[in-house]
Amino acid sequence: MPLRPHRPLPLATPAGVEVLTKILTQGPIPRVEIARRTGLSQAAVTKAVAPLIETGFVTDQSAPADGDGQLGIGRPVSPLTVVPSSVSVIGVKVTPTSLIGVTTDFTAGILNVRHEELDSTDPEAVIEQLAGHVKALIAALKSGTAVAGPLAGIGIAVSGDVDASHGVVRDSPLMGWRGVPVAELLGKRVRVPIVVTNDVRALTVAEHWFGAGVNADSFAVVTIGSGIGCGLYINGEVVSGAYGVSGELGHLPLAPGDLVCTCGRRGCVETVASSDAILTRTRETTGRSDLDLAGAIKLAHEGDEHAREAFDRAGEVIGAALAAMVNLVGPELVMIAGEGVAEYDLYEERMRRAFAEHAFGAAGDCRLMLRSHTFDDWARGAAATVIRSYVRGEPPLERGT
Amino acid sequence: MPLRPHRPLPLATPAGVEVLTKILTQGPIPRVEIARRTGLSQAAVTKAVAPLIETGFVTDQSAPADGDGQLGIGRPVSPLTVVPSSVSVIGVKVTPTSLIGVTTDFTAGILNVRHEELDSTDPEAVIEQLAGHVKALIAALKSGTAVAGPLAGIGIAVSGDVDASHGVVRDSPLMGWRGVPVAELLGKRVRVPIVVTNDVRALTVAEHWFGAGVNADSFAVVTIGSGIGCGLYINGEVVSGAYGVSGELGHLPLAPGDLVCTCGRRGCVETVASSDAILTRTRETTGRSDLDLAGAIKLAHEGDEHAREAFDRAGEVIGAALAAMVNLVGPELVMIAGEGVAEYDLYEERMRRAFAEHAFGAAGDCRLMLRSHTFDDWARGAAATVIRSYVRGEPPLERGT
Repeated sequence: MPLRPHRPLPLATPAGVEVLTKILTQGPIPRVEIARRTGLSQAAVTKAVAPLIETGFVTDQSAPADGDGQLGIGRPVSPLTVVPSSVSVIGVKVTPTSLIGVTTDFTAGILNVRHEELDSTDPEAVIEQLAGHVKALIAALKSGTAVAGPLAGIGIAVSGDVDASHGVVRDSPLMGWRGVPVAELLGKRVRVPIVVTNDVRALTVAEHWFGAGVNADSFAVVTIGSGIGCGLYINGEVVSGAYGVSGELGHLPLAPGDLVCTCGRRGCVETVASSDAILTRTRETTGRSDLDLAGAIKLAHEGDEHAREAFDRAGEVIGAALAAMVNLVGPELVMIAGEGVAEYDLYEERMRRAFAEHAFGAAGDCRLMLRSHTFDDWARGAAATVIRSYVRGEPPLERGT
Repeated sequence: MPLRPHRPLPLATPAGVEVLTKILTQGPIPRVEIARRTGLSQAAVTKAVAPLIETGFVTDQSAPADGDGQLGIGRPVSPLTVVPSSVSVIGVKVTPTSLIGVTTDFTAGILNVRHEELDSTDPEAVIEQLAGHVKALIAALKSGTAVAGPLAGIGIAVSGDVDASHGVVRDSPLMGWRGVPVAELLGKRVRVPIVVTNDVRALTVAEHWFGAGVNADSFAVVTIGSGIGCGLYINGEVVSGAYGVSGELGHLPLAPGDLVCTCGRRGCVETVASSDAILTRTRETTGRSDLDLAGAIKLAHEGDEHAREAFDRAGEVIGAALAAMVNLVGPELVMIAGEGVAEYDLYEERMRRAFAEHAFGAAGDCRLMLRSHTFDDWARGAAATVIRSYVRGEPPLERGT
């Protein structure tokens, strides 16, 4: 069994956590540069790094070590990097129709991928299937050709209002879940630390620690698709909301008030801009109730004015929502992501025009950047959240032993 | 002359800044509690505190020292406080019709107040008058009965898009200013460190360091009046926006698109909710073009349905804007402030209803709190921004000597 047992990181102080975070997200990085960026003394950095090297989580050798602690002889002034194989993580994105799971190393590099259709969205049934899914991913880690590091934990990403501190999905309209204690239910079946998180926030953590957001002082990830979500990274941290809710861009009241959202409110952005809303509108205006989303997209690409109008409306409201967001928080960078990015050409022009019309002053200077995330990236976001939690020494919700 | 010369704080390290910030904003506070809250060792706290006590900025005596360094004999385990009289600060809020200036001590406690009508909004004329205003405040500090601490700097608060890092008012529709280099122009006339800041952000700094936000993990200050503004404190810092713009709640596109805002955009919250918008609406619907704001308020209080409708519309849009903000950033606490708070009863019900209709899930759990700021509080916000800048050792924009 090449999967070694769980072990904590040797990080006794906040300074240690800060140092490892810099190595993990900005490495290879010399000690002196860590001192400069953290404001710690070089002595403090060296002191924090020593046990991490000794235990094999970090190396200052030119070539990455193999994680077995058998380090070669290297120059002591080499920049520091983490040893990817020193830690393994599992991340699963739960959608109404499928489970998408990945295993990753310490740097969120994907090792295994597993897609599985969901038989039902009933919470108990999903958790049962999820437990099997996770066990299969653990088996994949164990049977891999390379040695896999100890499993730090399992991350589960779900859309909606998630109480991460208790591992409870409070309200997920997409899943039809209310008050589902995912960590508790899964913890009875799998004895590994569990993190439950909002899916968009997980993606934002991945972009901040391992993605396009590494060097940004602030950024937003806006996801467009079956829902419209938004993750925010501001003032050195992903925004989580005092009550667990934030980034609900899809539920800003920017659309006409005559449309009722899946959440029950009126005028939400999603009533016009979600893929379901676009499909419903196209069916209504074309009179073709048999259309599916692919059909509506095809029609729009062929120039059908009704189908195009549905995308135009969506683009208009998405642009206004982007402007509202940048006017409020003023991020440096906005990444536009989600499955709806595939049809970006159909709404980009209207979206950009509405954005330009409503962005206030210099807030409109932020860079809009397209990110084509796959479903695996959402699962990787859940894994990145586990890595963050592990590095910070946050107490796991469920562990058993 | 009891005003002593400028002197820097003895803070060599980021840890020192963190320790002083805790003493300033959360004192009286024991060393052990500072260590607990900052994650620093007790030894590091003691080391950072020693030079601050020696130079008279901080004391661990039960009764505050008089700032002359003549400390009495006290218990060494007493909690730490700053010595208010060890530092003086000036803050001025610039409005289109007046200058409101205050002098404060190190804890932003107001010492002197000076109100002055503005003769013109022409930038050069305003700066000239501002220089005289500041000199009068310096004279007031010097002539005070108590010994005033060295002047740490002058803070100038202006509404609109302010580039604080260069001390330039980029765009202030209210003042009619574009690209006015306030720090440079004022620095030619007054040889003291100058900080220029957005007024709502300054108020937010004051609430965070010395006000209702001291113990909140996150909060928003929403100001209602001639404009609708918003300051945000999230993840340990006031949000400044990557390009200097944030909190532009008055320019979210939540109002009908047929109304053009003073900023030139359509559908901004302010087209319905600013005091001018309320007045204009009441004039239109009542046919009384002679009404002033006080008259419109009086009519509404008397139950005039047209006047009430104008306030209802404003309340509706303000409630939607509050919901949009909490859905995005999820603050723990929302303070409602600004001169419009005086008429809160006229729009509160509609505002709360619209907020409840559009707040998403647990985001709506945030506490809404009324704060009756005076104009002096805005000036105090500018002073608080100077104190923050002084403690952090940020390089002054203009100093001379």
